Amino acid sequence: MTVGLTGLPPLLVVPGIRSGAAAAGLRKPGRRDVVVIECVPGTEAAAVFTRNRFCAAPVVVARAHLERAMPRALVINTGYANAGTGLPGMHDAEACCSALAKQLGCEAHEVLPFSTGVIGERIPLDRLLAALPATVRELREDGWSDAAQGIMTTDTVPKGASRRVSLGGREVTVTGIAKGAGMIQPNMATMLAFIATDAAVTRETLRACIGTAADASFNRITVDGDTSTNDACVLLATGRAGNPRVDHAGPSYDALRAAVTEVCMELAQAIVRDGEGATKFITIEVTEGESETDCLEVANTIANSPLVKTAFFASDPNWGRILAAIGRARVSRLDVHRVCLWINDVRVVRDGSLAPDYTEAAGRAAMRPAEIRVRVSLGAGRYSARVWTCDFSHDYVSINADYRS
Amino acid sequence: MTVGLTGLPPLLVVPGIRSGAAAAGLRKPGRRDVVVIECVPGTEAAAVFTRNRFCAAPVVVARAHLERAMPRALVINTGYANAGTGLPGMHDAEACCSALAKQLGCEAHEVLPFSTGVIGERIPLDRLLAALPATVRELREDGWSDAAQGIMTTDTVPKGASRRVSLGGREVTVTGIAKGAGMIQPNMATMLAFIATDAAVTRETLRACIGTAADASFNRITVDGDTSTNDACVLLATGRAGNPRVDHAGPSYDALRAAVTEVCMELAQAIVRDGEGATKFITIEVTEGESETDCLEVANTIANSPLVKTAFFASDPNWGRILAAIGRARVSRLDVHRVCLWINDVRVVRDGSLAPDYTEAAGRAAMRPAEIRVRVSLGAGRYSARVWTCDFSHDYVSINADYRS
Repeated sequence: MTVGLTGLPPLLVVPGIRSGAAAAGLRKPGRRDVVVIECVPGTEAAAVFTRNRFCAAPVVVARAHLERAMPRALVINTGYANAGTGLPGMHDAEACCSALAKQLGCEAHEVLPFSTGVIGERIPLDRLLAALPATVRELREDGWSDAAQGIMTTDTVPKGASRRVSLGGREVTVTGIAKGAGMIQPNMATMLAFIATDAAVTRETLRACIGTAADASFNRITVDGDTSTNDACVLLATGRAGNPRVDHAGPSYDALRAAVTEVCMELAQAIVRDGEGATKFITIEVTEGESETDCLEVANTIANSPLVKTAFFASDPNWGRILAAIGRARVSRLDVHRVCLWINDVRVVRDGSLAPDYTEAAGRAAMRPAEIRVRVSLGAGRYSARVWTCDFSHDYVSINADYRS
Repeated sequence: MTVGLTGLPPLLVVPGIRSGAAAAGLRKPGRRDVVVIECVPGTEAAAVFTRNRFCAAPVVVARAHLERAMPRALVINTGYANAGTGLPGMHDAEACCSALAKQLGCEAHEVLPFSTGVIGERIPLDRLLAALPATVRELREDGWSDAAQGIMTTDTVPKGASRRVSLGGREVTVTGIAKGAGMIQPNMATMLAFIATDAAVTRETLRACIGTAADASFNRITVDGDTSTNDACVLLATGRAGNPRVDHAGPSYDALRAAVTEVCMELAQAIVRDGEGATKFITIEVTEGESETDCLEVANTIANSPLVKTAFFASDPNWGRILAAIGRARVSRLDVHRVCLWINDVRVVRDGSLAPDYTEAAGRAAMRPAEIRVRVSLGAGRYSARVWTCDFSHDYVSINADYRS
């Protein structure tokens, strides 16, 4: 079940980018599970990776390759995360890069590998390598939707977004795809996102752009508080639009950053809307905090509380669980007598106690929609933060109890 | 469902303590929901309370009363937590103390109130007060098991434990009761525990005793990472055993502390074994850490990971999820290449990668029993820590989605 997702929007071609997918039979026969995204020579790239200390072999390899050269291709497999696989796992990731490089006529270190799936088991490398020629044959400029489908794991729908923006008089395109759907938590939790633009951008600027965009999007979503070993978000810029090369400052950078952020935000929210077993999409906004860190801590504590999440699943305005979550958040100071709470437009708590005009009927009505906004005011300062999450349903347990079987 | 609990063990009488329970019809008609524990004049008391900043009215009142005088009685209600109820809630808690004090012939501030249940709604005070005379009539020395039943909420079985110990040549008894069963997390998560002994102990010593015991027991269990507004653990010492009054140092203190800790440990483990929807009882032991804090952080991150907990429910040796949890624990340093992991006696991970002698069959077999021990070695120092938790099942979602309905 997904909340308010109506399938893939039209994904615009990005000149200089071709993608394709094929079925290697890695985990489920017949399902497309290998994706290649190829970019023209001269494409700049920047990426952010998981902060989990057990990072997967492909993360280590991709980071190293990216430091060494501009990439010519990305190769992504599902089914196996290639994490916790030690040195053999590193060799597998490198072997995959070499094989693809040979077919594309580039160097192995110009290929960036990405994996998602079960941790700790070796990738069936022979099958993966055998599927590469077919994947390369599938490469085409309008391959985005195939690629979006090819990177899915427990996702129930493919995720993509596109924007157009004018930079120095030239129309520029930004298109991205992503996969979720569980183990989502700030700082690149199990999530892969690949975004490309035909804008001409310096590498430094591209880095700043993806950092800012990821911070406002992928680092603000949480499904279950778990973070993964494999997550990555890559931004490619082919330069084919012919715009004056975007440097850090100025209106062109702002416009590009806004477009990339919008794409990332739409992808991030789609991941939550398709969260494992999700029946509700919840925006949690914490305002009037002493710092943004405090606001984020409170928002994430609410968003990750299993008791709060099961209450959302039940459409139960059990606001006491939200207060209890606020009360245990790791913030240095909290004056409970200043805390106010709204569910949608219903004020539930005023100055730490039940609001005098609150009624259970109003609370129930506010919890009923599939999209809910929780707002908490801490009454302590001028900072705020917002995160997106989903509820915790029977299906979450089913999906995760049966994942490997 | 509970894991390895076979009902209430025999609970020994503690001279100087009488308890009783009655049905006030607070939430469910006919169910005993009010409990009084009365103690003789001269009884010393010490307590630890929730660290949640939204602490309930009864917590505030009990703490204040305890500072002012030695208690003569405890009054506990279920159904309503009396938290988030503002000043009216404080008055309700005080009114309850006054009413009971009148019946017992003591002062209101010699009564300590405790509540557990739904947050944010006022207690139906008239019904609670109307049931007090019946509760007082029920008071008797062997009332422990009635009291254990009377404090239950989503618990499926009553919880109690007793120990005998010799102090200075005198036989002394320690008996305790507790309730869980969700919202359990270190630092007095929704949990009430009442422990009594007939030992003669100074107040200072009693404080040290309950602090140490709670730290080794109630602060080492977690069901879902949520902590509550109401939790409390009280230790009463009537002095009726006639032993030489126990002061801080010496073998008598050690013996008493050991007995109280054993009772608390049995109660704490019973809470996890009866965790909401639990089908497995899991001991997580983290060794060779740089500090106890690091070990605890790693243990709690594993214990609270929904992905790890659903894998336990499915008996799936999905050890990658355990590694991912270790990798995101908030410890200052972690050398993943030194991490080892065992499930029961099966070594799964050696030096950060799959152990060469590990087989999936062995992993599956290790995950099958209802009691599982996970051991993680960080290879960084000489500290260790142990926590107890349970799995995450469909029933957890059902229980918490339907709690108020």
